[in-house]
Amino acid sequence: MNKYAIIVAGGSGKRMGSAVPKQFLLLHGKPVLYYTIKTFLEAFDDLQLVLVLPEDYADMGREIIDAYFDYNRIQITSGGETRFHSVQNGLRLIHSDAIIFVHDAVRCLVTVDLIQRCYEHALRMGSAVPVTISRDSVRLLNEELNDNEVLDRNKVVLVQTPQTFHSRILRPAFEIDFKERFTDEATVVEAYGLKISLIEGEENNLKITRPVDLLIAEKLLEANLSPQSV
Amino acid sequence: MNKYAIIVAGGSGKRMGSAVPKQFLLLHGKPVLYYTIKTFLEAFDDLQLVLVLPEDYADMGREIIDAYFDYNRIQITSGGETRFHSVQNGLRLIHSDAIIFVHDAVRCLVTVDLIQRCYEHALRMGSAVPVTISRDSVRLLNEELNDNEVLDRNKVVLVQTPQTFHSRILRPAFEIDFKERFTDEATVVEAYGLKISLIEGEENNLKITRPVDLLIAEKLLEANLSPQSV
Repeated sequence: MNKYAIIVAGGSGKRMGSAVPKQFLLLHGKPVLYYTIKTFLEAFDDLQLVLVLPEDYADMGREIIDAYFDYNRIQITSGGETRFHSVQNGLRLIHSDAIIFVHDAVRCLVTVDLIQRCYEHALRMGSAVPVTISRDSVRLLNEELNDNEVLDRNKVVLVQTPQTFHSRILRPAFEIDFKERFTDEATVVEAYGLKISLIEGEENNLKITRPVDLLIAEKLLEANLSPQSV
Repeated sequence: MNKYAIIVAGGSGKRMGSAVPKQFLLLHGKPVLYYTIKTFLEAFDDLQLVLVLPEDYADMGREIIDAYFDYNRIQITSGGETRFHSVQNGLRLIHSDAIIFVHDAVRCLVTVDLIQRCYEHALRMGSAVPVTISRDSVRLLNEELNDNEVLDRNKVVLVQTPQTFHSRILRPAFEIDFKERFTDEATVVEAYGLKISLIEGEENNLKITRPVDLLIAEKLLEANLSPQSV
């Protein structure tokens, strides 16, 4: 089966308080995005990658490919107004039947193992959305001010990427009209009327959103190099 | 108002795969528990601390107090079968009206600011339970196999400690019979029939549960020393 990864790096990184979007910040001397791309290319020799970048940063993306990768396996396209529109742009470059991974560029600690498990699962089930159990207790805020209730922690999961789908599910799903509540690909597929299938994610598969996350990611990368310490 | 902190370190740390419970593991050369105690003592000059330790580790706790702290402000008692019972044991040492903080020993990155905010809030509202918004999308697993639904991320919060209460709420609440669903103090107070009040927690106030969390905590500690990098 063909394999495509749409790496979504549309964000302009306002939350980081840095001029450079967070996918370009350096981690052990290389851009965050480098690690994300590298792991996907390593996961499958025949995987093709579609990089969705903010228009102003296409050149910065090309510099990373020039330095480390091969254009035979990577295409670049522009980000849209929202993540939904960015993924739509990415999908336009994929024409064959395929298993399609949609992944946050800033989740640069994703592993080959998780990508391969998502593939196998999506091949069998049509989709694979990685989730982890929360380490903290979880509460739901109700409409009323200061009213809230505890949720059963074993029933609450935190959603990660790569959200992985068969193209015959993802492509038609992304032809529906955009709605505000589309926070990820799973919500789009559900709005299209299909169920999604969850699989176990990885606690270290964190999203780089704050400067301190870069420091944490550095530590986790070092620990991955010597797995006995994890 | 009197101030007591019950630091709960009842766990024997099986998940860490280490012989030593995680509250005694070293962070920059000092035990995790050292940082937790230090921050609470710094938050208020007149705060008294009750340390709840597994019976086998009372000596190790005493060594930390001997080395760094003052017995005038710290008492030690034994952990019970569950967290509920550990907190009950701690409460037996508190006789006056007070604001009582109950805190996970392994949340060693708690700040003076959070402790003081919890105090002010609990003084006014009767309770203060710190929470953060989830950075990931959140889903609720339903009874049916493979059925799940997305939750509104803005309505889901992750619960931290110090869970802070007026003694007139916490003491009677802990006289009710133990139930399996008591995962923290907030659930006990609610089972007693009272509402709890949430306040904003801190994203760095993480729980040390895996060896790699120690590395992360080290990075966060270093970053705290130079706040402009966070």
